[in-house]
Amino acid sequence: MNDVSAATRSWNTRAQEKSRRLKLIEPWMNGAVLDTERIVDALSALIVTGDRVAIEGNNQKQADFLSRAFAKLDPGRVHDIHLLISSISRPEHLALFEQGIARKVDFAFAGPQSLRVAQLLEDGMLEIGAIYTYIELYARMFIDLTPQVALVCAAQADRHGNLYTGANTEDTPTIVEATAFRHGIVVAQVNEIVDELPRVDIPGSWIDVVVQADKPFAVEPLFTRDPRHIGELQILMAMMTIRGIYDRYGITALNHGIGFDTAAIELLLPTYGESLGLKGKICTHWALNPHPTLIPAIESGWVESVHCFGSEVGMEDYIAARSDVFFTGRDGSLRSNRVFCQLAGQYGVDLFIGSTLQMDADANSSTVTLGRLAGFGGAPNMGHDPRGRRHSSEAWLKLLKDDGPNPEIARGHKLVVQTAETYKKGGEPTIVDALDAIAVGKKSNMPIAPVMIYGDDVTHVVTEEGIAYLHAAEGVDDLVAWSGGLYAPPARFRSW
Amino acid sequence: MNDVSAATRSWNTRAQEKSRRLKLIEPWMNGAVLDTERIVDALSALIVTGDRVAIEGNNQKQADFLSRAFAKLDPGRVHDIHLLISSISRPEHLALFEQGIARKVDFAFAGPQSLRVAQLLEDGMLEIGAIYTYIELYARMFIDLTPQVALVCAAQADRHGNLYTGANTEDTPTIVEATAFRHGIVVAQVNEIVDELPRVDIPGSWIDVVVQADKPFAVEPLFTRDPRHIGELQILMAMMTIRGIYDRYGITALNHGIGFDTAAIELLLPTYGESLGLKGKICTHWALNPHPTLIPAIESGWVESVHCFGSEVGMEDYIAARSDVFFTGRDGSLRSNRVFCQLAGQYGVDLFIGSTLQMDADANSSTVTLGRLAGFGGAPNMGHDPRGRRHSSEAWLKLLKDDGPNPEIARGHKLVVQTAETYKKGGEPTIVDALDAIAVGKKSNMPIAPVMIYGDDVTHVVTEEGIAYLHAAEGVDDLVAWSGGLYAPPARFRSW
Repeated sequence: MNDVSAATRSWNTRAQEKSRRLKLIEPWMNGAVLDTERIVDALSALIVTGDRVAIEGNNQKQADFLSRAFAKLDPGRVHDIHLLISSISRPEHLALFEQGIARKVDFAFAGPQSLRVAQLLEDGMLEIGAIYTYIELYARMFIDLTPQVALVCAAQADRHGNLYTGANTEDTPTIVEATAFRHGIVVAQVNEIVDELPRVDIPGSWIDVVVQADKPFAVEPLFTRDPRHIGELQILMAMMTIRGIYDRYGITALNHGIGFDTAAIELLLPTYGESLGLKGKICTHWALNPHPTLIPAIESGWVESVHCFGSEVGMEDYIAARSDVFFTGRDGSLRSNRVFCQLAGQYGVDLFIGSTLQMDADANSSTVTLGRLAGFGGAPNMGHDPRGRRHSSEAWLKLLKDDGPNPEIARGHKLVVQTAETYKKGGEPTIVDALDAIAVGKKSNMPIAPVMIYGDDVTHVVTEEGIAYLHAAEGVDDLVAWSGGLYAPPARFRSW
Repeated sequence: MNDVSAATRSWNTRAQEKSRRLKLIEPWMNGAVLDTERIVDALSALIVTGDRVAIEGNNQKQADFLSRAFAKLDPGRVHDIHLLISSISRPEHLALFEQGIARKVDFAFAGPQSLRVAQLLEDGMLEIGAIYTYIELYARMFIDLTPQVALVCAAQADRHGNLYTGANTEDTPTIVEATAFRHGIVVAQVNEIVDELPRVDIPGSWIDVVVQADKPFAVEPLFTRDPRHIGELQILMAMMTIRGIYDRYGITALNHGIGFDTAAIELLLPTYGESLGLKGKICTHWALNPHPTLIPAIESGWVESVHCFGSEVGMEDYIAARSDVFFTGRDGSLRSNRVFCQLAGQYGVDLFIGSTLQMDADANSSTVTLGRLAGFGGAPNMGHDPRGRRHSSEAWLKLLKDDGPNPEIARGHKLVVQTAETYKKGGEPTIVDALDAIAVGKKSNMPIAPVMIYGDDVTHVVTEEGIAYLHAAEGVDDLVAWSGGLYAPPARFRSW
């Protein structure tokens, strides 16, 4: 061996440091359970300056008891924290920066807090590592962004630290796995501590500290859209999508983005879809949160299965009563899982459709508007052609292009559909010369413009004017092919 | 409501069917534990004609006690099974087809059994759903390929059905989650049943039946490469890769494929890499199985972390003694996880490098050779440019191309490196006019040719002749740009 240091250095410093920290809070622990009153003291002992701290901060549920306690730490004692958070959702997430506790953040979405993120960045009080899709951020938690501490939440725990998440499992198992097995400390807030759990979602041997919160964790109803607010144009576009895309390509497995455009499609299946004779032929298998607007389609027997990223407030009893359709545990409640659903949405379905706020002439689109740093959550992961895919399906093969340099090396394409009305409320055009995202990226010194869906991934654009079948003609050579060889373009357009 | 059937139909048929089947084996159960002698009877009751059955069948560990028992079922009673298996590794996996128990298979890899797969297909005794990457197959288990029964394996169980997998966690949690929460039946073989587990890898409330196997589950040492078999050309290519790619692009987070080419790179880090002053600058964070050839680099302090798909026989004590580097549990043993490592290998690292057997002039490559239906396991998932990626890194940005139609809409690129000697043993050329994969695909009626890595994803090709920087010039316009505008190509080559 060239190096003798191996014999003398310690190779278990992470585990040792974890033991050291946990020892500090021993006086306030009863088995795995921490005295609720001691939460600020405990976090002050468990979190050390410079740590990477993952906080839940999901798309829906919030470890808000822990984030409020975290924001009460003394910045003289704990500072320069690197925050890993999938969704910056709560005021105290940013209070961490205002108070000088946290310094850097890696995140995927900052919807309601996006203005403040932009402001703090400009004021030099917050540094952005990068803006990710959810699944990229988790990927890096297993590589170079493993957390020293994770602050997560669940519905219930038992005295051994086993966790029951209920319907909003979401990201918890992933964050906990990345932390616990790299000798980080996992702290879980729970609504209650019970003797026996309805089911175990996360084993107690992965959890270090359980603490009963002062009140149940916060959770946002994000996916509820009132049908009465769906407009005429949205209905028109939904009908075009069902007839011109779902029917035409035979789309059985799919994901819908959030919003009224796609809610209209869900609602029209048992009426317009039924009238086209499409029941059982399209829209049978879903990667989707439990959208209330999907209820009519489920009740009418359209839907075989729905795997969910998270849950939706108010859908608990409905889900439990429809266990043939949803993924539920022995206790009857939903088991959601954001990573698995994002995986399914990337590789397991044939179509993604989502709304956008702006699109340029090349079909690049973004929901980023001036002054906001929102991120895209999961849309780019679902809204691209996954080039690692090797299995075929009927729909995927319908987009096969064999006109490349070698026609025998061809592959299909996922359907990536963007939908938008050509004018927004107030008459502002959706189709623009340059996306606002370009200016936002420059202003915030982002290395590239924050594009949500790239035009070269998009196969279809749906507006109230019609459907653009982008995959059908990408160049002049395609126009020749479509003409059956009858179209003879001018010489300077011939390069194939 | 348009439809009154909702009130009258049952929405819990899956859970009811599960209860019905489990009731049949009650006489042979003691809590969650099945009498070992009754395994064939039990599978005969639990598995029903037409079921989708997921069997482990991983890259490494094998639920071989269960697959042997499965192959003993009476095909008159149980037939037309649809098998879901990530790796067809054992003779009895195919005996299921020869005996008429199974009819259709979806899989990701069939290395040692690939000749027999091709033969059974030709004889009409086996039907292939599709050939996947691992992660695609799991994705579909949450969409339209949810299993009715999963046959998995673990090292130990307790009497409540909690499972301890030890180092080879691999795919078990994923298969179990997809099955258990869609009301499928999960049967786990274990090496022993104990009172207290070292840690819980999978909660007992997800497991229906535990059975002690007749002998410990089989596991293959797949990733051990004896350094003495590394040739001169492989050393040369490894040196070129370190200097010309890892150093040049500053590659810190990466994945290596299996084989001697990449083993040579791992071995050269503490010698050649050290001489270039690259320690701490490259190769710090890995998505990789615990390759023995990485030991010198770890011992020399090169490696910060390694997240593993699976484990490797013989590395157990080493891993436990190096917990700063590997992901390990409280018990000290590795926690691997194929899905999370594939996720990390897709989205969390900047470089994939792998060997190939054949490559065409467009850099399309494949390891498929005539007469074999092997599949690619995980290579295509890691070996492509993930277009859903939105975060930047230094290495990724070095491949940014801003010469498209809109230079303000640009993105970086993952480094996808293919390595091969230009001639194989026996003087057979590696660079071919047409991949054998094209003929194999046609002969087996595959919808597209089984290409492992597509040329348009590849950024670099390394042979003993040198490195081709494919991303540097993709067309004539790039050559003009590289010339600083001095090169004036003939008019017919101008189309930009």
